[in-house]
Amino acid sequence: MVYPNATHTRFAHALGAMHLMDTALQSLVAKGVIQLSEKTFEAALLAALLHDIGHGPFSHSLEGNILPYPHETITYALLELLEVDLGDLSETRAILQGQHPLPYLCELIQSPLDVDRLDYLVRDSFFTGVQEGIVGTERLIHTLTVTPDNHLAIEEKGLASVEKFILARRFMYWQVYLHKTVLAAEILLQKWYALWVAQEGPLLPLNSLSKNAPPSKELLMAFMELDDTTLWALIRAGAQHNHLPLRLLSKALLQRVLFKIHWGHPSLQDYHSWEAQIPPLLHPEAKNFWVEGKAYSSTYEPSPAHEIRLFTKKGEVLLLSEVAPWLVAAGPIEKTYWGYLSAASLESLLQSP
Amino acid sequence: MVYPNATHTRFAHALGAMHLMDTALQSLVAKGVIQLSEKTFEAALLAALLHDIGHGPFSHSLEGNILPYPHETITYALLELLEVDLGDLSETRAILQGQHPLPYLCELIQSPLDVDRLDYLVRDSFFTGVQEGIVGTERLIHTLTVTPDNHLAIEEKGLASVEKFILARRFMYWQVYLHKTVLAAEILLQKWYALWVAQEGPLLPLNSLSKNAPPSKELLMAFMELDDTTLWALIRAGAQHNHLPLRLLSKALLQRVLFKIHWGHPSLQDYHSWEAQIPPLLHPEAKNFWVEGKAYSSTYEPSPAHEIRLFTKKGEVLLLSEVAPWLVAAGPIEKTYWGYLSAASLESLLQSP
Amino acid sequence: MVYPNATHTRFAHALGAMHLMDTALQSLVAKGVIQLSEKTFEAALLAALLHDIGHGPFSHSLEGNILPYPHETITYALLELLEVDLGDLSETRAILQGQHPLPYLCELIQSPLDVDRLDYLVRDSFFTGVQEGIVGTERLIHTLTVTPDNHLAIEEKGLASVEKFILARRFMYWQVYLHKTVLAAEILLQKWYALWVAQEGPLLPLNSLSKNAPPSKELLMAFMELDDTTLWALIRAGAQHNHLPLRLLSKALLQRVLFKIHWGHPSLQDYHSWEAQIPPLLHPEAKNFWVEGKAYSSTYEPSPAHEIRLFTKKGEVLLLSEVAPWLVAAGPIEKTYWGYLSAASLESLLQSP
Amino acid sequence: MVYPNATHTRFAHALGAMHLMDTALQSLVAKGVIQLSEKTFEAALLAALLHDIGHGPFSHSLEGNILPYPHETITYALLELLEVDLGDLSETRAILQGQHPLPYLCELIQSPLDVDRLDYLVRDSFFTGVQEGIVGTERLIHTLTVTPDNHLAIEEKGLASVEKFILARRFMYWQVYLHKTVLAAEILLQKWYALWVAQEGPLLPLNSLSKNAPPSKELLMAFMELDDTTLWALIRAGAQHNHLPLRLLSKALLQRVLFKIHWGHPSLQDYHSWEAQIPPLLHPEAKNFWVEGKAYSSTYEPSPAHEIRLFTKKGEVLLLSEVAPWLVAAGPIEKTYWGYLSAASLESLLQSP
Repeated sequence: MVYPNATHTRFAHALGAMHLMDTALQSLVAKGVIQLSEKTFEAALLAALLHDIGHGPFSHSLEGNILPYPHETITYALLELLEVDLGDLSETRAILQGQHPLPYLCELIQSPLDVDRLDYLVRDSFFTGVQEGIVGTERLIHTLTVTPDNHLAIEEKGLASVEKFILARRFMYWQVYLHKTVLAAEILLQKWYALWVAQEGPLLPLNSLSKNAPPSKELLMAFMELDDTTLWALIRAGAQHNHLPLRLLSKALLQRVLFKIHWGHPSLQDYHSWEAQIPPLLHPEAKNFWVEGKAYSSTYEPSPAHEIRLFTKKGEVLLLSEVAPWLVAAGPIEKTYWGYLSAASLESLLQSP
Repeated sequence: MVYPNATHTRFAHALGAMHLMDTALQSLVAKGVIQLSEKTFEAALLAALLHDIGHGPFSHSLEGNILPYPHETITYALLELLEVDLGDLSETRAILQGQHPLPYLCELIQSPLDVDRLDYLVRDSFFTGVQEGIVGTERLIHTLTVTPDNHLAIEEKGLASVEKFILARRFMYWQVYLHKTVLAAEILLQKWYALWVAQEGPLLPLNSLSKNAPPSKELLMAFMELDDTTLWALIRAGAQHNHLPLRLLSKALLQRVLFKIHWGHPSLQDYHSWEAQIPPLLHPEAKNFWVEGKAYSSTYEPSPAHEIRLFTKKGEVLLLSEVAPWLVAAGPIEKTYWGYLSAASLESLLQSP
Repeated sequence: MVYPNATHTRFAHALGAMHLMDTALQSLVAKGVIQLSEKTFEAALLAALLHDIGHGPFSHSLEGNILPYPHETITYALLELLEVDLGDLSETRAILQGQHPLPYLCELIQSPLDVDRLDYLVRDSFFTGVQEGIVGTERLIHTLTVTPDNHLAIEEKGLASVEKFILARRFMYWQVYLHKTVLAAEILLQKWYALWVAQEGPLLPLNSLSKNAPPSKELLMAFMELDDTTLWALIRAGAQHNHLPLRLLSKALLQRVLFKIHWGHPSLQDYHSWEAQIPPLLHPEAKNFWVEGKAYSSTYEPSPAHEIRLFTKKGEVLLLSEVAPWLVAAGPIEKTYWGYLSAASLESLLQSP
Repeated sequence: MVYPNATHTRFAHALGAMHLMDTALQSLVAKGVIQLSEKTFEAALLAALLHDIGHGPFSHSLEGNILPYPHETITYALLELLEVDLGDLSETRAILQGQHPLPYLCELIQSPLDVDRLDYLVRDSFFTGVQEGIVGTERLIHTLTVTPDNHLAIEEKGLASVEKFILARRFMYWQVYLHKTVLAAEILLQKWYALWVAQEGPLLPLNSLSKNAPPSKELLMAFMELDDTTLWALIRAGAQHNHLPLRLLSKALLQRVLFKIHWGHPSLQDYHSWEAQIPPLLHPEAKNFWVEGKAYSSTYEPSPAHEIRLFTKKGEVLLLSEVAPWLVAAGPIEKTYWGYLSAASLESLLQSP
């Protein structure tokens, strides 16, 4: 809704991540740093290909809403279903869950240097045209190495490349992922979904859900049937619904009428002066057209489990947070925001057929 | 279904065409070749923005099927509806219909050098990664000029650029638009649609249609409600339909099981040996899974109305077909093809849930 | 002197050609189309790296002038000198001279599809910014194959790529290599060199040259000492020379005062009206400031020895001239030109210190 | 000597800087932020075009050596000579010297956001292929603005772009400008020049130089006659010189035999073990083949005079060092190094003809 050319798909991202995994492992093998059986190599490729299959319609925007699990949990559950056709996937699962005996394989999937980020940064830069996210992926991958205790690391000479990579992600959050209009569209969708569920019930039979158990096979199969087009069909239906706020938010999505977003905290007066302007019949439902929240992205916040290592020619392992503390000093991007559908927008939505 | 990153939209293309129209007219004004009132300038921009609004779901693939008119006719009819909101669009309509007193405006919309082609070639090259279609658009636009009788022309020094442009389109047809797998997907969709209509009737109430009249307002409004997601919802429904061939083609689309395409003409034996292999219960319906056809694209076939002009420094108008007859000699791309859903594909579709 | 960023070097071109040879051979080996001993592989790389070492200062512009042999002859002679250090180069020489038992190796060096052209087209496009020369080198190389009788060929599916490649070269000649200002600079240099030799004798002791023998070792060593900077030093010296025309042409080079070039044939009146304007003291030397000539580049002119082959899946060998006769029809680019240093240019050169 | 394609010239850089100045000023005028007379506009373009004319052969590597002034002093002095032909250049001089009444003009020439850096970062990235230096110049320029007191600033929304720009420069220093092999080549040249002067005297008649005066016109004219080719001629002459160390360093340059560089401080033992290996006849001259030094580049070290300003929508001026202190925290790049021509290199130089 912001970058008209950014219509690239999760499928393409999955292919890209697998391709980068392939390139990275081949490079490490060619350097003589690792040896891998064909089976393990294939398990790693599969892990990259499947790392996001647990995502549903509109992915992050509705994650945990349609099916109340993080997408990783759903991914792991889907692996079991896939085993019926593909045979044993235990090694792939171990890589995805961070439990493989070769930690660098897990780190290529989930760490500050994983193939997920390497792919999406470049892909999103390309399709949005935002040059700040461009990363010299090829060079970065060719400076990857593995420490004696099997952790992923960067050769010392790759320091600048990895600094660049951390910062590229920061810039993409700043300019794309946390862009005001991107937020505005996400908020509208989430508000819409909450209203839909309140009126029509959840998309899936969640009552069968037992708190601590993973999703059942039936639930997973039903979840897999859903995609963006399913939701767009509901949004179209919503535009004819007899519940007024749901009708308005549905039309807002169809007509790309978005929340107006401001950074910071609203004053009480901000709220009242907005409320005073909107059509009186909407006053009881005003909360559906008003939002307050916080957006967040880390730059580089290392933890013992997730720290980028540098491997020197002398065989030392250095930690990026010590070599380049300024990356940590750059701190996270944190944006408090508030917003609303303007009085004029609401009027026009009320009047449109 | 062939180039996973080629998910760009008609909306982006319309923005692009308008941008190129803007660039071209500004360049011509800056050169002192033309003068334009603000009103006419805006009409030309609108014409570029709206030139494709008559396209429906899956555009060219189903053009004339859902609503039995060429997309241009629908575009002109939609202009009338738009006039309710936007006011008089007669100048925009004149440009789109090739009847404006300044022919170069019409030629920028519809001719071998129009902004439509200039945009889609570059856009499709970018998103497919097929470099053969890359065109130096900027340079081409800056060599545009207008002849004394108000026809669009290229300055003589732009000859190489325009030759390159004609050939880039040829290469894109060869490598993308008439790619075997692209054809295979298109054929599958068309076969599916024919079956759907045979079983469920047309998507729109076409019985109200009178042969020689343009589409009614009601029909247009209904047509505008349709988009790709509407059809994907029907395809999903088709996968549960009790008509076996419709069910199979629906699943084929959902599972990306495509026709196998061969160039050339099939022998009778080709047909019989295929038929002998497919499951006997499909024999009565075999024609739904078999196709013969012809794909075609011109390279440069000038007609009096559509000829690229070169304008020399001395003020002569030359015709591209005379200056570069080899472009005409390159001839059209014409591909006769035949194909089928293979026995194995049909088996697997029969068995999938 | 025309494209200020086109300062790339023959050294970089040689590295590039060797890199493409490496890529092409590795691709052919990986496809299982050829097998090569390490020794032959290395000989092919060396052939690509060394294919242009026979070029002297300003390469093509002064080829045959400084040392009266084509650059290939000099290359072969230099190979003998190199053998002192590098050992036997007979296989490299066979490849360069077109006499290797595996003709495809020779064709990768010298044919319409050789690594020389593949490199210089892309390199020159990149550094001049002229997009028309961009070629999908990677794809082209990956469709290379070898026929049963060991000739280089393109897989049938690569037809469009090879058509594109032929035309890219045509466009580069049109827009760069035969650009008016490029010609103007080349002519100036050649005129200057002729004058210098007339006044100061040849740069090398050519009197020792016997007609039918190759250049002596001493001559070669002296030739190798020369580079562009040697000639620029002479041009600077020429600007102080007491021979007036030489002084003027030297200054013209240093101050980038170029010939004015027209396409076509001059009339007698063109000459006389120019001569009438130039300073009378230059009349006796007018021929140094006037030029007539012809520039030429083929598009695709196949000969039995130099024909691009297509290799079909069925194992047939097709000739490009039969499959795409329009490429032959496109014909060569042939430009007759004439030109001069203008009266104003000559005046200003006369007056500059 | 490191990146074979990085043969771009100072002339191209000067054109580029002028082009960016043009783009920046046009953008500021179009925004209504500034108004400029045609005369001042032209003075600013000239300042950008001429900002580096004080550089001599090999520019920074020999700056202050051939003519003992910083290149800026020479630039100012050359402006006076140019005034003979070009007329009054006082406004151009004021901009170059930081004394123009409109400080933003001076800041576009010399500040952390000047057109010099904007051009060379992108140019050097392009020609070396080091992607880390790529900057979204266009976007950066379009977020430029001017504060009420006429200082250059960036609109608040350009913060990410300017952060990216600062860091791109850091990366280019890390990967290109302070690359070990780049340093090695620079050191070799400087050592060579010192030896040449010791043996043959300075290139220019510096004895006429009076300490506190600017260079005389004669000296400037002589300086302008020198270029890289002049020095390469001397280097060739040096290879035949009877002074052994000069001869060796000359050959080293011609044969690209470079110093071996280590980061850090050498131990006394490092020195002695090297000295023990080199040919005894070179012991007395060992210091010519050994080097210790320090390379340095700031990241963002603001001073009152050189601070990047951000201009908010509310009209506040913020300082980049306060908004993004982590850029200051990133600190300078400082590399202590030592190195030598290896014993093997020296042997081979001794033996080569």
